[in-house]
Amino acid sequence: MSAAVIHNGPGPSLAASTVSTDIDHTLLARRLGINTYQEPVVYLHKSSHICKSEGFEAHSRIELSCRQRRVIATLNIVSSDIVAQSEAGLSEAAWLALDLQEGDLIHMAHPRPLESFSMVRAKIYGRRISDEGFAAIVRDVIDGNYSDIEIASFITACTGHLDVEEIIALTRAMVDAGDRLDWGHRPVLDKHCIGGLPGNRTTLLVVPIVAACGLMIPKTSSRAITSPAGTADTMETLAPVNLAITDIRRVVEQEGGCIVWGGAVSLSPADDILIRVERPMDLDSEGQLVASVLSKKIAAGSTHVVIDIPVGPTAKVRRIEGAHTLGGLLTAVGAALGLKVHTMITDGSQPVGRGIGPALEAWDVLAVLRNERGAPADLRQRALDLAAAILELGQKAAPGEGMGMARAALDSGAAWTKFAAICAAQGGLREPPRAAYHHVVGAPFAGRVIAIDNRRLARIAKLAGAPQALAAGVLFHAPLGSRVDVGQPLYTIHAQSPGELAYARSYAMSQQDVITLQNGIQP
Amino acid sequence: MSAAVIHNGPGPSLAASTVSTDIDHTLLARRLGINTYQEPVVYLHKSSHICKSEGFEAHSRIELSCRQRRVIATLNIVSSDIVAQSEAGLSEAAWLALDLQEGDLIHMAHPRPLESFSMVRAKIYGRRISDEGFAAIVRDVIDGNYSDIEIASFITACTGHLDVEEIIALTRAMVDAGDRLDWGHRPVLDKHCIGGLPGNRTTLLVVPIVAACGLMIPKTSSRAITSPAGTADTMETLAPVNLAITDIRRVVEQEGGCIVWGGAVSLSPADDILIRVERPMDLDSEGQLVASVLSKKIAAGSTHVVIDIPVGPTAKVRRIEGAHTLGGLLTAVGAALGLKVHTMITDGSQPVGRGIGPALEAWDVLAVLRNERGAPADLRQRALDLAAAILELGQKAAPGEGMGMARAALDSGAAWTKFAAICAAQGGLREPPRAAYHHVVGAPFAGRVIAIDNRRLARIAKLAGAPQALAAGVLFHAPLGSRVDVGQPLYTIHAQSPGELAYARSYAMSQQDVITLQNGIQP
Repeated sequence: MSAAVIHNGPGPSLAASTVSTDIDHTLLARRLGINTYQEPVVYLHKSSHICKSEGFEAHSRIELSCRQRRVIATLNIVSSDIVAQSEAGLSEAAWLALDLQEGDLIHMAHPRPLESFSMVRAKIYGRRISDEGFAAIVRDVIDGNYSDIEIASFITACTGHLDVEEIIALTRAMVDAGDRLDWGHRPVLDKHCIGGLPGNRTTLLVVPIVAACGLMIPKTSSRAITSPAGTADTMETLAPVNLAITDIRRVVEQEGGCIVWGGAVSLSPADDILIRVERPMDLDSEGQLVASVLSKKIAAGSTHVVIDIPVGPTAKVRRIEGAHTLGGLLTAVGAALGLKVHTMITDGSQPVGRGIGPALEAWDVLAVLRNERGAPADLRQRALDLAAAILELGQKAAPGEGMGMARAALDSGAAWTKFAAICAAQGGLREPPRAAYHHVVGAPFAGRVIAIDNRRLARIAKLAGAPQALAAGVLFHAPLGSRVDVGQPLYTIHAQSPGELAYARSYAMSQQDVITLQNGIQP
Repeated sequence: MSAAVIHNGPGPSLAASTVSTDIDHTLLARRLGINTYQEPVVYLHKSSHICKSEGFEAHSRIELSCRQRRVIATLNIVSSDIVAQSEAGLSEAAWLALDLQEGDLIHMAHPRPLESFSMVRAKIYGRRISDEGFAAIVRDVIDGNYSDIEIASFITACTGHLDVEEIIALTRAMVDAGDRLDWGHRPVLDKHCIGGLPGNRTTLLVVPIVAACGLMIPKTSSRAITSPAGTADTMETLAPVNLAITDIRRVVEQEGGCIVWGGAVSLSPADDILIRVERPMDLDSEGQLVASVLSKKIAAGSTHVVIDIPVGPTAKVRRIEGAHTLGGLLTAVGAALGLKVHTMITDGSQPVGRGIGPALEAWDVLAVLRNERGAPADLRQRALDLAAAILELGQKAAPGEGMGMARAALDSGAAWTKFAAICAAQGGLREPPRAAYHHVVGAPFAGRVIAIDNRRLARIAKLAGAPQALAAGVLFHAPLGSRVDVGQPLYTIHAQSPGELAYARSYAMSQQDVITLQNGIQP
């Protein structure tokens, strides 16, 4: 007696081929121009024969393919005429992932089961995810096999429940899944700031100081996502930042440093996908923050990195204990992956410098580089602190001598010369724009500034047009602890159009607590 | 000295009103006919002034309002002409939630912060959610304040991490957030089957048996979501099921029972929303399953319920231990909420009856009710087991006497008379349709049936057109353990069109293991 598995039909010969020849699974691709925030979505008409024959329904996951490319998309069923029965409408993410042209035909199929999600399920029930597990999950995330719902579930399952070994495994998986730069040189220095502090544009000072002192520091920066300016946005008001990898190499070989937009190189692509789902949930996931930051640095080819952790009531990290834990984790995970990490806990209670917005921040940077009178001292000091730490970490300066070396580079004009040379190599130094419209917000009574809401100042700058309007933002006049007379300017809103100025101004007036004054007897 | 919070402007009088008068936040509503599977989505053109002035970007959450209604939608930004600059395109879910007409103007604003999500975050970090916490979360979910990503996070955080008190709190919150029926009568009986078994259409037998014996059993059933037929779909081939609540009351008062679609009454609306996100994740969340099932029963006004838990390798519950745990949880949570629960663990190793698909299952039911020769004995026996348990639970029959009473009701024709009367009261008994196209799948060799894949049989039925094509599906001839000769029919595919028949047939032939035969010497 023997057990036999059988095909339920006249014979196995007719099997798979019959399915693919009987039924037409191909539709005409149609670009709908819908930005679904990177989730690939396919829009099929409700009377499409593929919906019916394949049993696809709203929210089904469908594998789309064209030529050698494939992507898994979420189905939205359409009952209007925005797509025809013979068409497959595609969101921007799906269109770009398949690299389609008008007139292309795309093939549709049921995706294979998402096997790596079984490890997410296991994590939900409290088990650990292995190194191979993270590799498989990250690979599937990058390949677009996870829906936003599945990514949200993965992030939730990991939040607060990753041990150090798991964070190391996640970081390694994220590095391995993308490109990795090799500068053929050691050490390669880098810096990073754990966000949340408007105007904290030290990168544009640290890079030229460090490079002027002879260390290699190829800096890839991001554009603003939720903030009024990213480092790349600010740098772009001074020089081109959208460089191809060959041009980045040329700049770094020539000048020892660069400040370019990281989007042109595919470093830790999983990070970008996870962050997009993580951000709206506002989960304070230390493990993912560490994996996110370090995977980008390692992929960028850095060997030594100084990480600035500003702490303050409206900064990203709000308590000093949290900063210590995070610092310890960053150092330990970095060490396991061959990256030397030095963390600095800094004051995150108020904006740094005066400007908030791309051009306004650039003007602050220029004032410090050129040693102008009235240049923002806080920005200068923070940049020197970071540069000193980097010079010591990179063993260019002996312990305790980094600050002297950094200050000399800045004061002598060597850093400014280096910055101008980097800008020239990147395509030419240019003058940041200035805004035509201003509104000064004055103190309603005399007093001392006792609190500043970074988040609301950032929001005012965004409403004024930053970062799209490069010259827009907020110029901040009254640091924490300063005394102001009645009517004295607290901050100035800058805008490129009267409408944007009016809007930012209206919002500012409707908000309490942007700047809190304490009145009292003059000393 | 005193601390004072100040408005940053000429004075508070200009505050909020300025924002709302300066900027036009109103756009013309446009129905795009996109079914996003219930998530409200708003489609704004990238050059819309609201995107710019409010800082909305793809995936922003936006509060839409029109007249007294409001809903929070996820933003998709559009760069094509499917919406104009002055328009707000709406998904079907958003359009229906706002009850819009063509030409309506909708107002857009930033939603208030989602405070209840802080309790989800706390849960993620291992803390318990309080009774009030679940109430707030469920209220926000029903109000459409949670995005799919946030719902996925809530479900993930709860999966495997709810204690009995939390499951009770979640169930109560789900009941309290919807309508609740009151029959002015005790006991009110009910039955439920933890899904996963094709053809298990016992409800259509149990209700008339129990009602014929004099107990009240007002049954609200669901339509198919992923299966080839829901109880409401099968019942609809015999009588109308889409009854308003007043009609349901009339039927139940007159006949003591009904079998209607539950969609017409808003019982546990949170359940429908959670299930839609939960299903694609395929998480085996006992706590949510219990809350889902019991909240619907309690909201339906039931006081006593018998729950059938089929166990089998391709059923929803795969192991007997799992069924016991689930049964214990259902009983404990039910007791805490005043619902008497009796669970029955049954055989889930193969389909019940012969038909899979609305009309084919209805013919099975009719054969049992009319005591026809050759009526499926397994379906009859399951229905009698459940009816007996219900009669005893409702104290209509003494312990041990339920089976005799149930059998008498069925054998005497009383159950058939009652069923016909219920159908008449619901709008008229009708004959289920029959399919015009058939394909018989025969045994490739003589042998004994040793395994049946419920899931793949269900898939073949769906590909043949079920449940939309009421007469389509699979008629199953060879139960587990039966001997078949070569060529003897294993199952017949029924379809209403040649195309659907061909498609289901192609799929059937491409699959291994639908039915596994063991060949051997005849006894």
